[in-house]
Amino acid sequence: MRVHHDIEDLRFLLGTWRGTGEGVYPTIEPFAYTEEVTFTAGPGKPFVVYGQRTWRAGTEEPLHSETGYIRGSGSESVELVIAQPTGIVEVHTGVLLGTSLVFEGSAITTATARPVSATRREIDVDGDVLQYHLSMEAVEQPLQLHLSASLRRVAD
Amino acid sequence: MRVHHDIEDLRFLLGTWRGTGEGVYPTIEPFAYTEEVTFTAGPGKPFVVYGQRTWRAGTEEPLHSETGYIRGSGSESVELVIAQPTGIVEVHTGVLLGTSLVFEGSAITTATARPVSATRREIDVDGDVLQYHLSMEAVEQPLQLHLSASLRRVAD
Repeated sequence: MRVHHDIEDLRFLLGTWRGTGEGVYPTIEPFAYTEEVTFTAGPGKPFVVYGQRTWRAGTEEPLHSETGYIRGSGSESVELVIAQPTGIVEVHTGVLLGTSLVFEGSAITTATARPVSATRREIDVDGDVLQYHLSMEAVEQPLQLHLSASLRRVAD
Repeated sequence: MRVHHDIEDLRFLLGTWRGTGEGVYPTIEPFAYTEEVTFTAGPGKPFVVYGQRTWRAGTEEPLHSETGYIRGSGSESVELVIAQPTGIVEVHTGVLLGTSLVFEGSAITTATARPVSATRREIDVDGDVLQYHLSMEAVEQPLQLHLSASLRRVAD
């Protein structure tokens, strides 16, 4: 498939990924989840569409979901925007090195959302295995690890 | 279909909508577009998933797309978060009156995005007809009308 030149270097992300992860934070009980992530090339556009859903591990109970876009530039500079039904949006500046992405940015929330102020998202892909780590600054806690997952590509 | 209590009053939005719209702004040439909008009930959750795509009128050339979530509360207070591949996110407070929604909020952008600072989004539904108006404060212009469209429900 042909993709826009500015996302050529992000092709390694494209597809559907499934796997498991775990969440930790000082203010919550640790929890395990299953996850599906999709990265789709924009329609002739310089961005990758991102979507994600999680379920409580071993159940069909939906937990989180989010959607957004990775903006390519044809260089190692990338950007990421995300919306979450929990009332959170994120705006990130990122760096692409090989098949690793590191995004750092601000989170802005609606009035009734949990107060999250910043996140850091690392994505590392090795062939058909994707691992990510998400650190979060929220509810008066400093930036620290919140989510880790390991996913496998199940469809291109 | 059963939906979460907090989005019961937003049922009138659910479905797929198609139609046409036009865009104006002091800094651009007016343009016409076709559009498809979907509103889907969250999976047992108190939110409505929002997705949208437009094409240049009379063509298959993709123009804009965006995704987000409307957060219901079981009252007239609603919230809206949106992510756009143009590098813009929006965080809104809204009011639901009958089958009309008015959202007012801030836009935050990535470093390379067009500078948009605020939008106002009005949605009015009358049976199977949805009309919206989007006003925008951007590129040093005051808040003013940018997009208007009239859509028809083509699927529940």
